[in-house]
Amino acid sequence: MARKLLTDAADAGMLADSALIAHGRGEAFDYLIGEVTCDAARMAISETAARLRCAESPVISVNGNTVALAGPQMIACAAVLNCPVEINIYYRTPERMIALLSALNKQRQDAVLLYPNLANQIQEVQILGAQPDGRIPNLEGPRAKCHSNGILSADVVLVPLEDGDRCEALIAMGKTVCVVDLNPLSRTAQMATVTIVDELRRCAPILLTCLRDESTETNSIWDNEQCLQSAVSEMLRNFD
Amino acid sequence: MARKLLTDAADAGMLADSALIAHGRGEAFDYLIGEVTCDAARMAISETAARLRCAESPVISVNGNTVALAGPQMIACAAVLNCPVEINIYYRTPERMIALLSALNKQRQDAVLLYPNLANQIQEVQILGAQPDGRIPNLEGPRAKCHSNGILSADVVLVPLEDGDRCEALIAMGKTVCVVDLNPLSRTAQMATVTIVDELRRCAPILLTCLRDESTETNSIWDNEQCLQSAVSEMLRNFD
Repeated sequence: MARKLLTDAADAGMLADSALIAHGRGEAFDYLIGEVTCDAARMAISETAARLRCAESPVISVNGNTVALAGPQMIACAAVLNCPVEINIYYRTPERMIALLSALNKQRQDAVLLYPNLANQIQEVQILGAQPDGRIPNLEGPRAKCHSNGILSADVVLVPLEDGDRCEALIAMGKTVCVVDLNPLSRTAQMATVTIVDELRRCAPILLTCLRDESTETNSIWDNEQCLQSAVSEMLRNFD
Repeated sequence: MARKLLTDAADAGMLADSALIAHGRGEAFDYLIGEVTCDAARMAISETAARLRCAESPVISVNGNTVALAGPQMIACAAVLNCPVEINIYYRTPERMIALLSALNKQRQDAVLLYPNLANQIQEVQILGAQPDGRIPNLEGPRAKCHSNGILSADVVLVPLEDGDRCEALIAMGKTVCVVDLNPLSRTAQMATVTIVDELRRCAPILLTCLRDESTETNSIWDNEQCLQSAVSEMLRNFD
């Protein structure tokens, strides 16, 4: 199913070729983790939800793979948080941006059907990306472009499926960065404040539930290294 | 470099979308193996070379990824063995077959430049796939199509980057099947007679050297399970 969503998205011009390769890498690690949401991932999802809920200016940064795999779920998360969704892609071309904006606008209606209780908030979610007026410092090229009322001013950024450089640049700006990455050894996973080692489509509904649960609390002594180590141990158990 | 070759091949119509995803899965396992040819892979390469050399009717079965990554090297191996290269792909369409035949015919000239000592033999390598006149039993759909003077009558088949079903069907026909697969736990890896757990571009020149070395000998008690276990152990050491 995930593969179908991605190849359809590729056909719709939403993805760079490397996006399919990146998905394949994820599939291999998902296989190692047993294709389930492990305990470490559940804790990281809850921590991510708590940090997003406590944020002054949260934002959800999406790329082509995220839109293809979990666009409606990300819009619903943004609706609960009353925050924008910002398209921020590595290989930025006008065609790809148009394809992604159009997909997200369709997915907004899918989200209303999936989560009717959130319908009003979903209709109000801002989708940014079309007119970036800021830049992420220490990043070169078009991928540095961002919105001043989105990523640039955010204190907590959820970036599912982020690349290592951009994660590093966001951390260097002093932001809390929460990522979803199936490879616990990747630079993104290692750099992020909170790393959810899970498949995006599997964890997105859990994240949404945590965001809607007012009792979700942040763990002030969150140890991301420990979290990654737990995920690695889980993979080693399954692999051996 | 491998990624560039593949995205170019995708643009040239040589690959199904799923080919890029499959490559990504391989990349993840290559990362785990430390991006080097491990001892188990070296032994499997030597065993593969010996079995191909001793074969009565060897054949090299190639798909889009193999052509993109190591087409000239596969043609050179076929030249040493005086055997055909047969295009045998999962998603067979006339357009993709034409793209692959055209790529291999160009690569024949690349092979001559890379291996001038083999120039004459390289010019004589038969490239099969255009007019399949046989079928692999127990396989459904167009991927079962093959040549009676190629895969159908071969006793030893080298199939880099094979899919699990086809590997199983070839084994069921009583053939010796040698594969290249970075995932030692995949069905292909587990089913094959000899599994080279290595990246194709890295192992192809080593295989060619072994094929040209007349002292390469087969190990009559080849234990493929042991070979796969060694590769897994190597990954676990690197991962931990």
